[in-house]
Amino acid sequence: MRNKYEVISALGATLLLSASAAQASDGLDEYRQRFEPLPHLPPLPATNSQTEEKVELGNMLFFEPRISSSGVISCATCHNPALGWSDRIPRAVGHNGQVGERNTPTVLNSGFLDAQFWDGREPDLEAQALGPIQADVEMAMQLEHALERLAEFERYQDKFSAAYPDQEDPINADNLGQALAAFQRTLNTPDAPFDRYLRGDMDAISEQAKNGMVAFVDNGCIACHRGANFTDSQFHAIQVPGSTDLGRYVVTGEERDKYRFRTPTLRNVGVTYPYMNNGATETLEEAVAIMGQEMLGREFDEPTIDNITAFLHSLTGEMPDFEVPALP
Amino acid sequence: MRNKYEVISALGATLLLSASAAQASDGLDEYRQRFEPLPHLPPLPATNSQTEEKVELGNMLFFEPRISSSGVISCATCHNPALGWSDRIPRAVGHNGQVGERNTPTVLNSGFLDAQFWDGREPDLEAQALGPIQADVEMAMQLEHALERLAEFERYQDKFSAAYPDQEDPINADNLGQALAAFQRTLNTPDAPFDRYLRGDMDAISEQAKNGMVAFVDNGCIACHRGANFTDSQFHAIQVPGSTDLGRYVVTGEERDKYRFRTPTLRNVGVTYPYMNNGATETLEEAVAIMGQEMLGREFDEPTIDNITAFLHSLTGEMPDFEVPALP
Repeated sequence: MRNKYEVISALGATLLLSASAAQASDGLDEYRQRFEPLPHLPPLPATNSQTEEKVELGNMLFFEPRISSSGVISCATCHNPALGWSDRIPRAVGHNGQVGERNTPTVLNSGFLDAQFWDGREPDLEAQALGPIQADVEMAMQLEHALERLAEFERYQDKFSAAYPDQEDPINADNLGQALAAFQRTLNTPDAPFDRYLRGDMDAISEQAKNGMVAFVDNGCIACHRGANFTDSQFHAIQVPGSTDLGRYVVTGEERDKYRFRTPTLRNVGVTYPYMNNGATETLEEAVAIMGQEMLGREFDEPTIDNITAFLHSLTGEMPDFEVPALP
Repeated sequence: MRNKYEVISALGATLLLSASAAQASDGLDEYRQRFEPLPHLPPLPATNSQTEEKVELGNMLFFEPRISSSGVISCATCHNPALGWSDRIPRAVGHNGQVGERNTPTVLNSGFLDAQFWDGREPDLEAQALGPIQADVEMAMQLEHALERLAEFERYQDKFSAAYPDQEDPINADNLGQALAAFQRTLNTPDAPFDRYLRGDMDAISEQAKNGMVAFVDNGCIACHRGANFTDSQFHAIQVPGSTDLGRYVVTGEERDKYRFRTPTLRNVGVTYPYMNNGATETLEEAVAIMGQEMLGREFDEPTIDNITAFLHSLTGEMPDFEVPALP
């Protein structure tokens, strides 16, 4: 029996696809229903309207190394567009070569997260954006000093004024965070092969990936990695090999939060290695095996690991458009 | 009386421009003859054929931070496309936040230089490219280790093989240097306003810039800043405020080379501040004044400084096309 969702979904497919594709089914409808394709834009907060001017300013600021105290580290240093908007090293390297405690999360689709950072210490991208600028092991900059540097440039004065036209003194921390957040909300990968599959293109992913999808559901991975962005935005306790990181406990001080981390997105996980909060796991196969052991108490056999890995690769979308801005 | 060059030049202008523009003259032909527009490509060395495959590989390598020992510093860190392919800080910041002795030269039009680095210690881009990778204060990487890291990636194996199809073991230092050089030879700015002016568009630069061109010639700036890339590729002694750098002496050990530096290009000088070998000079006006004093023994008055500065801004071209590569 079809539920309402299925009817709507089938209707959508009929409208979108050729007749033969619309009628196609691979017998996995029940599984596919458990997932959602990624929307093209994340939810936009009422307090930060998404304007072109803000996005353009945020794009400039994202690539601006002079808001770091060394003058050479920008957001794009660790969230490198050449490297899946992350850095592909175990733990972030920042000011004076200091190595942080955690693996850099990609900013791709980060607008879909309900909590930012591994420990969820900020609720949204606006607040998140100001953290790494000030963190001693990252950009190591005093926010006030960063704003002063920006204000020295006529072009930043103009761009901030254009983005915040009603404000007398728009170069401030709130607007810095807003513009960076607005830009990051454009960095989404909505058309991954798996999204096309969910929208009715039965051949968009391989048979092996489909088997992986089935294993992903049947083994319960989907309990935490769920929804359009493959995360419940909740905190779960895990201590991966080599990690002594207390996780969310650092934020709340509550005993029950020890070693808890926010479930990371699995979108683009194929291009955002290495894995785990400490980045100690190099391959996706290894990561799948560890998650089976640590979170599900299961020893996946090799075919299962390979299938789930193939499925995870189908979550890699096209990298979003952006420009390397010409900075003043 | 017209010389052969003028006739050819006028003919070119007739072919390229509307009749009125071709006949236009601003009475400064004698000055214009002293300059050359920048070709679209620099001289290509016989030993490094410029192929698409090499350029593509070089583009990848230019943005590849994993050939640095920290894993986060690439060529593009200091030669940042967002910042005129330089870094806009006085002296380069490299491995573990170490500050080098010299200001980062832009890579724009660097294929036109006859000697690389401030002290000319390498003759070409092939040899230049391998320096910063290994320098302790820059990427601090052993070349062998860099090559090993690249060889770990199947995609680099494929790309090196495609660029060097007849070689059995193409991931080597020579090819690394060649590919980076080939890519950098695409980073040119041939259509600056001043080039368009030289090619016959009399309105491409302002009256003030034309006055600056006249002052640039009449005061002898052109003696060293000459040719299409505004440098004689020779070494001249200068000790700017705050610098104790021995310059070319470091390379040759010869007394007469003390404090000598290769004449830097003036192309894109408007977007590659700060200035001088130690980057201690922030504005172009100040740089022009210092060069007048130190190199020409003249105190330029303010209008002259402003005119020369306007002229120098006309040497800023459109930034070249490139792609931020998706790295493996």
